[in-house]
Amino acid sequence: MSDKSSPQTIGKLAIIGLGLIGSSIARAARERHLANVIVACDGSEAVRDIARKLSLADTVFADPVECIQDADVIILCTPVGTYESIARLICPDLKQGAILSDVGSVKKTVVSAISPFLNNTIHFVPAHPVAGTEHSGPEAGFGTLFDNRWCILTPPEGTPESAVQLIDRFWRDLGSKVEIMSPEHHDLVLAITSHVPHLIAFNIVGTAADLEQVTQSEVIKFSAGGFRDFTRIAASDPTMWRDIFLNNKEAVLEMLGRFTEDLYALQRMIRWDDGEGLHELFSRTRAIRRSIIAEGQETSSPDFGRGKK
Amino acid sequence: MSDKSSPQTIGKLAIIGLGLIGSSIARAARERHLANVIVACDGSEAVRDIARKLSLADTVFADPVECIQDADVIILCTPVGTYESIARLICPDLKQGAILSDVGSVKKTVVSAISPFLNNTIHFVPAHPVAGTEHSGPEAGFGTLFDNRWCILTPPEGTPESAVQLIDRFWRDLGSKVEIMSPEHHDLVLAITSHVPHLIAFNIVGTAADLEQVTQSEVIKFSAGGFRDFTRIAASDPTMWRDIFLNNKEAVLEMLGRFTEDLYALQRMIRWDDGEGLHELFSRTRAIRRSIIAEGQETSSPDFGRGKK
Repeated sequence: MSDKSSPQTIGKLAIIGLGLIGSSIARAARERHLANVIVACDGSEAVRDIARKLSLADTVFADPVECIQDADVIILCTPVGTYESIARLICPDLKQGAILSDVGSVKKTVVSAISPFLNNTIHFVPAHPVAGTEHSGPEAGFGTLFDNRWCILTPPEGTPESAVQLIDRFWRDLGSKVEIMSPEHHDLVLAITSHVPHLIAFNIVGTAADLEQVTQSEVIKFSAGGFRDFTRIAASDPTMWRDIFLNNKEAVLEMLGRFTEDLYALQRMIRWDDGEGLHELFSRTRAIRRSIIAEGQETSSPDFGRGKK
Repeated sequence: MSDKSSPQTIGKLAIIGLGLIGSSIARAARERHLANVIVACDGSEAVRDIARKLSLADTVFADPVECIQDADVIILCTPVGTYESIARLICPDLKQGAILSDVGSVKKTVVSAISPFLNNTIHFVPAHPVAGTEHSGPEAGFGTLFDNRWCILTPPEGTPESAVQLIDRFWRDLGSKVEIMSPEHHDLVLAITSHVPHLIAFNIVGTAADLEQVTQSEVIKFSAGGFRDFTRIAASDPTMWRDIFLNNKEAVLEMLGRFTEDLYALQRMIRWDDGEGLHELFSRTRAIRRSIIAEGQETSSPDFGRGKK
């Protein structure tokens, strides 16, 4: 579908929120000439100052309503808990034919939050780029963040095909591969590939911090044994993640139930010395790693090169 | 303690088992001139062939008893489940004053397995370098694997101070920092910093593989959302990890119990919309990450540089 040689050009692109993702979109869109005009807004004065210093957009606003005037494409890049109030503010002022999109990590509640403020002349194409790092803020972004990552679109029924195609093309121009699925399926897939892994990482880092027999300094010193891999994702933005769990409750609780059930089975194997059962599971999981590397979603360098200097 | 300018020289160093750790010790000891003679053995003919091709040791044996003849320092680098049978074989043939050590990830059962075969003229100094990658085998090793990592020694009571000092110095010469603690405390610390994290990683990768609503190809595609961080450690050697869990059952089950208890509390926060509780936990865990980076046990580059090409 994507024609790499001539990217689609958007007239005016408005980015609401200049964190890691918003600022990465701004950078990538600028570098790849995907819009004639890029405007952005952020509620934080400190963020706006940095954004202006880095020239992330042509104009940086404090007020989202000012920001979206005459915009052709508007992308919400704030925590999903803010979507409803932002949609209430901006939707009445969006220009006819404007396409609203987002980057939220949950999709079912996002569609419910925004739909009441839409009308026949504004089209909403929810999107979720499955990309990121544990760092936050406008300085953490970079223009190649979306390269070779997947972006999932979950257009509600009745969304005009032309609007879906525009956002599809936009993400391909940003370097991503695009997949379309229902909001419900998205939330289930992400619950297991992202939300529950984060929850477990937050949890074990918390468990380790609370131990009385092992000091925090020991946990930190000996983290190279595996623990540090969890701390990376447990260092992700607290507000963003709070909103994700509260907005994908159903799927997260279901996947967590399965995880816990499996964990009890594994615990039982250890208690009853079932070496064969353990070995079989550990051999299966090794094979999945190989598939992820083969699909280009990971590097095979040992330890991501951390061990070698 | 360590005098970097003139490393200690061991007469004859014998390495039993040439996997990731054994072959890394061989490489580092050779590169840093830590022994006059380095011999090694491995039960696998394929591994011996590779070891000879890579010149990992002066002589590579199939038989551990031949390997340890006249050795001053002997290091067991095989899965801990093999220690008892190897000790039974080699201890009667160890030379007077020989120092036996190991690299096992558990220490209490290791001490019990080996002690019966010791006598007054052989000294056992258990060691555990907290370092590694998810790769296995003699080709996966590298000479800088132990740089700036911690090595934990757990000498049983009555071990001569000179033997402890020799192994301490050996690991410092290999690039590590050294800490001494009891086998019991070691097993508790490692249960939370390494064993339970691995168990959880093996478990969630297994849970994801078994889902019927989400396909395996979806899990792989969208793994950049967090899941892939778990697959790295879930790709570690199955035999080694089976042995670790079976040999550190008590501490692993205790830490796992705490983890599960905390996970239930977290699950409850999600179910009851306790956004404040979630935010507080997620902010705490972020701070621990910073300490690990400050201690030099991790790099702060976003995503370990995976996101940037």
